[in-house]
Amino acid sequence: MASDMNLKPIGIVRNGITDARHHGWRDVISEIIVEEALAGALGGLEECSHLIILYWMHRLTAGRSLPLTVHPGGHPELPLVGRFATRSPHRPNPIGQATVALLGRAGNVLTVKGLDAIDGTPVLDIKPYMPKYDAAPDARVPTWLTRL
Amino acid sequence: MASDMNLKPIGIVRNGITDARHHGWRDVISEIIVEEALAGALGGLEECSHLIILYWMHRLTAGRSLPLTVHPGGHPELPLVGRFATRSPHRPNPIGQATVALLGRAGNVLTVKGLDAIDGTPVLDIKPYMPKYDAAPDARVPTWLTRL
Repeated sequence: MASDMNLKPIGIVRNGITDARHHGWRDVISEIIVEEALAGALGGLEECSHLIILYWMHRLTAGRSLPLTVHPGGHPELPLVGRFATRSPHRPNPIGQATVALLGRAGNVLTVKGLDAIDGTPVLDIKPYMPKYDAAPDARVPTWLTRL
Repeated sequence: MASDMNLKPIGIVRNGITDARHHGWRDVISEIIVEEALAGALGGLEECSHLIILYWMHRLTAGRSLPLTVHPGGHPELPLVGRFATRSPHRPNPIGQATVALLGRAGNVLTVKGLDAIDGTPVLDIKPYMPKYDAAPDARVPTWLTRL
């Protein structure tokens, strides 16, 4: 199964940020430079107020040798929980996912707000945010999350 | 950049469904069989009511030779829009993403509702759904979406 799961970037993040930070991304403005050959696949995207961006966290430690448990957000006072129960960026498959606001589009360049990815991050996919698929208005979250 | 973007599955979907369908996934119950070696990374996940599942759409046509535009949902009466403006499962990088309800966990097996992936789909990542990152309550969607 899945003998060939290789990715090719469709674009790249530009925002001038070179340090991976845990917080402060909400107001960051980024450009996503989509490959020219794929610009035609962006038509109509500007009708969406929000997008889901999948990206490759190319500078972070990843893979199967990571500890299975982690303190959420790196806070030692929070309980150790399984890595998949957290949004730690260090994961077996280092795919990041962010819901961002689309501020504008000029040809193959999207301007977005709230993307938590450093400058140079390869972008894997761009999807329109659709509440009927993506929202879970009644979601219950772990108690530790309320202490972050 | 991104010279080595290879994925390894962390688990597999089991739901007995062998035909890729466009609709009717909302009530589908699936099991996600996580590799035994990674079961320890699931601890605490049961505190989350909803998860985001990333998976590899291994049986679908994908890649860069796809047409750049598409009729949303395959409906010819809807306008042609860019592929990235739709949730078409046929994408340059065939990564699917679903917000699902977590019904239960038994060791390395998660039972979820609403995962739109066929039996045997490789799972890439499991993330807790966190409204502060994932919800966009004020999202505006394309007008064609309201006609689907």
